Amino acid sequence: MDGEDSKPMAKEKTNFQILSPPNTRDLVDSVDAFLFDCDGVIWKGDALIDGVPETLEALRSMGKKLVFVTNNSTKSRRQYAKKFNSLGISVTEDEIFSSSFAAAMYLKVNSFPIDKKVYVIGEEGIYEEMKLAGFDCFGGPEDGKKSVLFGSNSLFDHDKSVGAVVVGLDRCINYYKLQYGNLCIRENPGCLFIATNRDPVGHLTALQEWPGAGCMVAAVCGATQRDPILVGKPSTFMMDFLLQKYNIPTSRMCMVGDRLDTDILFGQNAGCRTLLVLSGVTNMETLKDPSNCIWPEYYTSSVSDIMSLSDDR
Amino acid sequence: MDGEDSKPMAKEKTNFQILSPPNTRDLVDSVDAFLFDCDGVIWKGDALIDGVPETLEALRSMGKKLVFVTNNSTKSRRQYAKKFNSLGISVTEDEIFSSSFAAAMYLKVNSFPIDKKVYVIGEEGIYEEMKLAGFDCFGGPEDGKKSVLFGSNSLFDHDKSVGAVVVGLDRCINYYKLQYGNLCIRENPGCLFIATNRDPVGHLTALQEWPGAGCMVAAVCGATQRDPILVGKPSTFMMDFLLQKYNIPTSRMCMVGDRLDTDILFGQNAGCRTLLVLSGVTNMETLKDPSNCIWPEYYTSSVSDIMSLSDDR
Repeated sequence: MDGEDSKPMAKEKTNFQILSPPNTRDLVDSVDAFLFDCDGVIWKGDALIDGVPETLEALRSMGKKLVFVTNNSTKSRRQYAKKFNSLGISVTEDEIFSSSFAAAMYLKVNSFPIDKKVYVIGEEGIYEEMKLAGFDCFGGPEDGKKSVLFGSNSLFDHDKSVGAVVVGLDRCINYYKLQYGNLCIRENPGCLFIATNRDPVGHLTALQEWPGAGCMVAAVCGATQRDPILVGKPSTFMMDFLLQKYNIPTSRMCMVGDRLDTDILFGQNAGCRTLLVLSGVTNMETLKDPSNCIWPEYYTSSVSDIMSLSDDR
Repeated sequence: MDGEDSKPMAKEKTNFQILSPPNTRDLVDSVDAFLFDCDGVIWKGDALIDGVPETLEALRSMGKKLVFVTNNSTKSRRQYAKKFNSLGISVTEDEIFSSSFAAAMYLKVNSFPIDKKVYVIGEEGIYEEMKLAGFDCFGGPEDGKKSVLFGSNSLFDHDKSVGAVVVGLDRCINYYKLQYGNLCIRENPGCLFIATNRDPVGHLTALQEWPGAGCMVAAVCGATQRDPILVGKPSTFMMDFLLQKYNIPTSRMCMVGDRLDTDILFGQNAGCRTLLVLSGVTNMETLKDPSNCIWPEYYTSSVSDIMSLSDDR
């Protein structure tokens, strides 16, 4: 399994197309599973995007598998399923692949020693997934209010048995956590540095973008001078789990997302069809900017177009 | 003036030499000004390094100019002079070139509009230098305890008149400051992003290294996807001020420091002689590592060797 950072590959500009009735019908017919990003695709902050429940329902009734692949690490799969259900969308935990779960699975498949501990710079989601996977973890929310005392002879002590530092979005980031992670990575031999994702910003509220995990991961890189192992999109680490579960070739999967450098690149890296929705962080200007080198197969304004266009006979 | 980030230049491995009595005498004779880094050279945390006061005194008595060029932005020049004097070393404010002062001077020489404000992610040093230079600044220490409320329709407001975000070491870094800086840089047209320095770690206490400004700067880069204007070492921005003040050619200056990627590179970029001391973050292993591509002209264990070796006739 490969959890290494996947860099965008130089690629010829493809003829990306706007979704239209004929190509939408072709796409739907030739795909058995739709992989959806969540933030900016299903919802923005806590606000559902128009037409999403009906679209998902219609796809399900056509026998399509629905999978939710999200880089947001602040929730566990359980917490995600709860959010979906609270918004009136029936989704089960095992249809959700969050980067918090991916981080725990990375340690699992790489036989992370049971006598080693995990230090978390992140929120509840990572913490819960680590515990569920049976790992001894600390940090995260419980270190959110800690501060550092600077005496001339004071020593900041850290646990030498930490074997992995997992970094995701952390809205309670502070200097204590940064130093804790820094010391573990620099001083504990072989300590892993795992990033749930590197999204620069995300729609944490409907009205604005906020610093994402990419901010905290960069901070740790800046101090440690180390590159992380990336488990979220665009890394295809999660794809092996998907393939094992659904037994569908990636050529019959379509990744639907709002970010070029995570969602669309993940889809392309995995060999999936790709559909960019403009309901999140990417707009037409960004998509058509000469500096952009990641193009989806299709683009459209939002998820509901999949059904409205394929119904338009 | 050029405040842009200076990247290490590929360079043939020079024959760097250990200080010895003959080459020390040659060096001292051919240099009119010694430029010293502070952390890891003069002191570690609050502990003076052995033999420093005597060495500085001896150099002064030989008519050498002494200049202190530090990337540490947590203090202003005034606060630095106070620290020197409290440690029994007589140094005046105008012998000190700190990255906090450099940030204020960068705005000054680039005619930063007086109706624009400066947002600070950093500590007292930056704050004080900005005020002394006449700039309207906020953030920094006063935002150290602020937190963010996430309501579904809450809007994080920011001042549209912020024209520069200055980022340095901030031991009270939090998500509020990161979002504030992020919004100013992303949304205020033409807003500058200035980094005092990018040191990954520093000896904030005698016993340990701690995340440096490079950690906070990387966090802001990670969120904004922008590169900063660097004013501290290895950028040679400060050299124009030094040249103006001392009227000594850089070939007759010697930069003495403990970091290859800041001090030694700064000295080389500016055309100075260079002396690495092993009393700080760099050890022989790092210096001789095959991946290292920055070599000083000379190296020695600590500053006091300059006098003990040149006296050794």
